[in-house]
Amino acid sequence: MDIKTLENIDINLASISKINEVDFENLTFGNTFTDHMLICDYENGVWQKPVIQPYAPFTIDPSAKVFHYGQAIFEGMKAYKDERDDVWLFRPDQNFERFNKSATRMAMPEVPEDVFMGGLKRLLEIEKNWVKKGNGNSLYIRPFMIATGKGVVAAPAVFYRFMIILSPAKSYYSGEVKVLIAEHFSRAANGGIGAAKAAGNYSAQFYPTKLANEKGYQQIIWTDDATHTKLEEAGTMNVFFRINDTLYTAPTSERILDGITRKSIIELAKRENINVDVRPVLVDELIDAAKNGTLKEIFGAGTAAVINPIVGFSYKEDYFELPKIEKSFALDLKEKLTNIQYKVAEDTFGWTVKI
Amino acid sequence: MDIKTLENIDINLASISKINEVDFENLTFGNTFTDHMLICDYENGVWQKPVIQPYAPFTIDPSAKVFHYGQAIFEGMKAYKDERDDVWLFRPDQNFERFNKSATRMAMPEVPEDVFMGGLKRLLEIEKNWVKKGNGNSLYIRPFMIATGKGVVAAPAVFYRFMIILSPAKSYYSGEVKVLIAEHFSRAANGGIGAAKAAGNYSAQFYPTKLANEKGYQQIIWTDDATHTKLEEAGTMNVFFRINDTLYTAPTSERILDGITRKSIIELAKRENINVDVRPVLVDELIDAAKNGTLKEIFGAGTAAVINPIVGFSYKEDYFELPKIEKSFALDLKEKLTNIQYKVAEDTFGWTVKI
Ligand SMILES: Cc1ncc(COP(=O)(O)O)c(C=O)c1O
Ligand SMILES: Cc1ncc(COP(=O)(O)O)c(C=O)c1O
Repeated sequence: MDIKTLENIDINLASISKINEVDFENLTFGNTFTDHMLICDYENGVWQKPVIQPYAPFTIDPSAKVFHYGQAIFEGMKAYKDERDDVWLFRPDQNFERFNKSATRMAMPEVPEDVFMGGLKRLLEIEKNWVKKGNGNSLYIRPFMIATGKGVVAAPAVFYRFMIILSPAKSYYSGEVKVLIAEHFSRAANGGIGAAKAAGNYSAQFYPTKLANEKGYQQIIWTDDATHTKLEEAGTMNVFFRINDTLYTAPTSERILDGITRKSIIELAKRENINVDVRPVLVDELIDAAKNGTLKEIFGAGTAAVINPIVGFSYKEDYFELPKIEKSFALDLKEKLTNIQYKVAEDTFGWTVKI
Repeated sequence: MDIKTLENIDINLASISKINEVDFENLTFGNTFTDHMLICDYENGVWQKPVIQPYAPFTIDPSAKVFHYGQAIFEGMKAYKDERDDVWLFRPDQNFERFNKSATRMAMPEVPEDVFMGGLKRLLEIEKNWVKKGNGNSLYIRPFMIATGKGVVAAPAVFYRFMIILSPAKSYYSGEVKVLIAEHFSRAANGGIGAAKAAGNYSAQFYPTKLANEKGYQQIIWTDDATHTKLEEAGTMNVFFRINDTLYTAPTSERILDGITRKSIIELAKRENINVDVRPVLVDELIDAAKNGTLKEIFGAGTAAVINPIVGFSYKEDYFELPKIEKSFALDLKEKLTNIQYKVAEDTFGWTVKI
């Protein structure tokens, strides 16, 4: 894939950069933003000329539909810098495609490729100093779209705003992660919006996650809402289970986000001759495997953390600790994947795209 | 119930009113706003001093959590003016209570009663000329709260903004309403946020509703997401079915909003000696009743439309027209309810509250 820089764009550069004020060694995830942002408005059925301008608050009407009816979607991707100072994206075509799928599900307009991809390239060219070298460093990219159209009547807006903001990130380490398996709460309905990266899916998880946190669990593994018997995904990650030497993960569905890390891990594991079985994984199976010692690993997979090993899980008041193992699939696959992302290993899949 | 005006508030009045520019005979719902709005910010665990100021756009950071994670809730209520020019609210305590329930479910802070109710009273005192007399006229009230806290990490915000905006409304007539019974899409999950007035619930319905509109149906009657056999509610209304002379409506649950119009209709119908049966209503029952002629009426119930009669419904490609009946429960109950709201009939329930 080759991305063409967007030429039809207005650029209004910041007079001074904030970059020297930033402590790149002590970044917390998602709280620092670069000097510029991209904005493109959709008015009466037409995408307007995009603009890159200094990162700053913007004005919006109190009756904007995003506030009342939650028409809002986003993507999460990363830019990496290699040893030759080239900047790379990882499978950005997948993010672009998924963004427009989310848009359709939320009755929002699709964003054209030249705005999303070409605009992103242009923005990254301007902000390339914000992408730091070294394993774990990256520039987190947040494209999003909100309904700016006015009116407190529950119907799709006619005005929208697409934006891209950028946040420098250190390697994401969330400490030892213990998870709770959901018995009552759910993140998605059959025929609902779980497969879209829609804003409303995330706030729905905050309260149950807070309850889990209070019990000492950092995250929840969601189960299907109808029976709570199938293991589906974590808050912002897909989830893998290793029983003996096979990796299991749920098939994507209307309830589960089609994660790019997940699908990359599946391909990578196959290349490494690891058995991968994509099929519904039952809570009961997991408990049995934990009890009889065949459960070796559980890990989450997503852009922010890449792979996040889980040390234990709780279900119906029972806590199951995962064994410490020597040859961890999680750590091995994480290394192989990040080596591709940082251009340390050869990208035999053609996943990386140069800016 | 007696509402105490909020005294601890800053008031900054508009220099001129827009009221003379408004054509009150030709209002479309939710598009015109009064001169002022109320704002109250929540910062670091503390609600700040509220302010009433001219209605206008406000500035917000691109990384505000409302845009990315959908932390946003609202209420919908109305103010009515009686023949003596007094302004009345209908069961506002119920909206206040429900608002804070929604807040808890979305991991947002509860709004204090003096800010919500006292602030609303103060705002209505200022805007009382915007409440027009005459059956059908009202001032629609939209209290809402959004997460203004910054950061693209999926966790509850620490900064929030509570606002009240007001929109003058004519009687809500949406033409002849035909509905589609949901066979695939859903609005809420078991253990999800369907019972909260959370922004994300509404945008989730836009795309399926658009598909229904394209087939000639104005609304969808949602069914339970697991089996699609139980009739639950319409887009922004609860729903009643009259079979013979009994009214049926689903019990509220985690998937169904506890509507104030719904619960008022149940009480009113009982007073009128109409049999009301609150229990799960099956799609199959509805089809059978439509076929054997015992299905007399279907209607939606909600603040905006009060009662919205439905003329026909479609299920699995079959269309069922409802009979034209002489003594309609829908019209009778609507008249009785609005007479209470407009202080034309005695309020034996104690539902109305003077401003
Ligand atoms: C709900 C959910 N599941 C899974 C993922 C992982 O997707 P990806 O690997 O594309 O980042 C995400 C996003 O990060 C997510 O929000
Ligand atoms: C999903 C939903 N159901 C039902 C209702 C009806 O509730 P109420 O009668 O309190 O307006 C509303 C709100 O208007 C709603 O948004």
